[in-house]
Amino acid sequence: MYQFQWPVRVYYEDTDSGGVVYYANYLKFMERARSEWLRSLGVEQDALLAREGVIFAVRSAHLEYLKPAHFNDLLSVSVIVEQWGRASITFEQQVVRSATPPVRHDNDREPLLCCTGRVKIACLDSSTLRARPIPSTIRTRISVGDVS
Amino acid sequence: MYQFQWPVRVYYEDTDSGGVVYYANYLKFMERARSEWLRSLGVEQDALLAREGVIFAVRSAHLEYLKPAHFNDLLSVSVIVEQWGRASITFEQQVVRSATPPVRHDNDREPLLCCTGRVKIACLDSSTLRARPIPSTIRTRISVGDVS
Amino acid sequence: MYQFQWPVRVYYEDTDSGGVVYYANYLKFMERARSEWLRSLGVEQDALLAREGVIFAVRSAHLEYLKPAHFNDLLSVSVIVEQWGRASITFEQQVVRSATPPVRHDNDREPLLCCTGRVKIACLDSSTLRARPIPSTIRTRISVGDVS
Amino acid sequence: MYQFQWPVRVYYEDTDSGGVVYYANYLKFMERARSEWLRSLGVEQDALLAREGVIFAVRSAHLEYLKPAHFNDLLSVSVIVEQWGRASITFEQQVVRSATPPVRHDNDREPLLCCTGRVKIACLDSSTLRARPIPSTIRTRISVGDVS
Repeated sequence: MYQFQWPVRVYYEDTDSGGVVYYANYLKFMERARSEWLRSLGVEQDALLAREGVIFAVRSAHLEYLKPAHFNDLLSVSVIVEQWGRASITFEQQVVRSATPPVRHDNDREPLLCCTGRVKIACLDSSTLRARPIPSTIRTRISVGDVS
Repeated sequence: MYQFQWPVRVYYEDTDSGGVVYYANYLKFMERARSEWLRSLGVEQDALLAREGVIFAVRSAHLEYLKPAHFNDLLSVSVIVEQWGRASITFEQQVVRSATPPVRHDNDREPLLCCTGRVKIACLDSSTLRARPIPSTIRTRISVGDVS
Repeated sequence: MYQFQWPVRVYYEDTDSGGVVYYANYLKFMERARSEWLRSLGVEQDALLAREGVIFAVRSAHLEYLKPAHFNDLLSVSVIVEQWGRASITFEQQVVRSATPPVRHDNDREPLLCCTGRVKIACLDSSTLRARPIPSTIRTRISVGDVS
Repeated sequence: MYQFQWPVRVYYEDTDSGGVVYYANYLKFMERARSEWLRSLGVEQDALLAREGVIFAVRSAHLEYLKPAHFNDLLSVSVIVEQWGRASITFEQQVVRSATPPVRHDNDREPLLCCTGRVKIACLDSSTLRARPIPSTIRTRISVGDVS
């Protein structure tokens, strides 16, 4: 299955005083990856809004926190389309710490699965904020990219 | 069932350019409510860390986004203990827009359920970051407050 | 001089892995205090936008970081109007850790000045985003509250 | 003068309901650029902390907000060392919207200076949090990179 990957570097802005990445921020990392996946398929979301009056909104998110990521870690965030609806897409996403860790983590150089997420996105009409079918132009592009 | 409520005001920092509260921020609102619930039971988390070497970490979160909240809304975040484990607590939480909405929302003065969350917290030893039983002193306090 | 104060509790969301409040977040704390100061004067910013097409935007900010604040600290954020313009207001703000610190800080119970800010706000027309005079209704209310 | 540039894409997480990049987030963008500038010179901050007990902390920041950036904009953040102290570095930084704007901004394809910052960083001993001289190894690398 086609799997899109997007790198995310951990800065201080992403961490908390527990010394790890603040858990809410994984939602941001996953969104960055989804946005770049759309861009890789030729979909610019601001053009989508301006030309077709379409926005995407998160309907639900289920996150499992497995291992902590730290300041300066290089993460890789995956995007897989798990399910298609007429007006929604459900993604399975993983955030993995890369195999070339920073200095502190000398003992565990294996890739580390930090967080998994299942995120459901709805396609909305930007003026009414009601669900609407995913535009066919987008659907076509996404299918091509994702099923190949 | 005892239900703790914590008010949260929406500032620009909480919103996004879709005009609504950015979805990841509901995790922050829910954490504020859990922290204040602990405080209301006499548990200061920094004291807990200093005296007993105990920290709490989020293990999983399941969020459903139902209705958007907006800038300047006054929200109320509830805390209910849904399940106790030896080393974990699972919460059910709701974020509700209060019934006295700001001016823009003249037509819908009803309380509005914006987001629900099921959040599982683990009790960890702060030096090893391994799961450890919830200290009995805490367990006692929490039970008293929550079951009454 | 009239000085508005707004309490801010430090949660994990506000900290970084250096163990202290992340410096960018002081801008958020200062904005919360300015928003509540306006509210205390009867100005609801969403009503202001809906009724008069007026928004406020930050034009400049000068921050000095003096002492770190920590998780669970209770801060007090002050608001003083330093200068009035026809279409702008300049504030002097201080973030002080309160004198009843949490357990870790037993040795330093004095109030602690953590951060000072000088923040200039512009009054904008919400449709053109151009500077416009501060509405007289607001100006009147603010003067009353602030000069007394 | 040598000038380091770092690209930053604007996601929803960076915006507010005013429709623009939330002003506090420019501090994050500038920090990302400084971190990547250090990395480009061979300095990994987590190694610096682990091996030399050195951390950097922001002492002051002066920001001017000139033009708003929007969702999906591609920004470029510059890093110039403005002044060297024994234990501090002062940076001049600019955040510029790139000349290939997204669709909405068809009329203004010029590069747009959105925000300028003057940020002073102190070199601290990580255990005492007191100022200490910038390690000579770092100073050497930085000079080489920055003056060439």
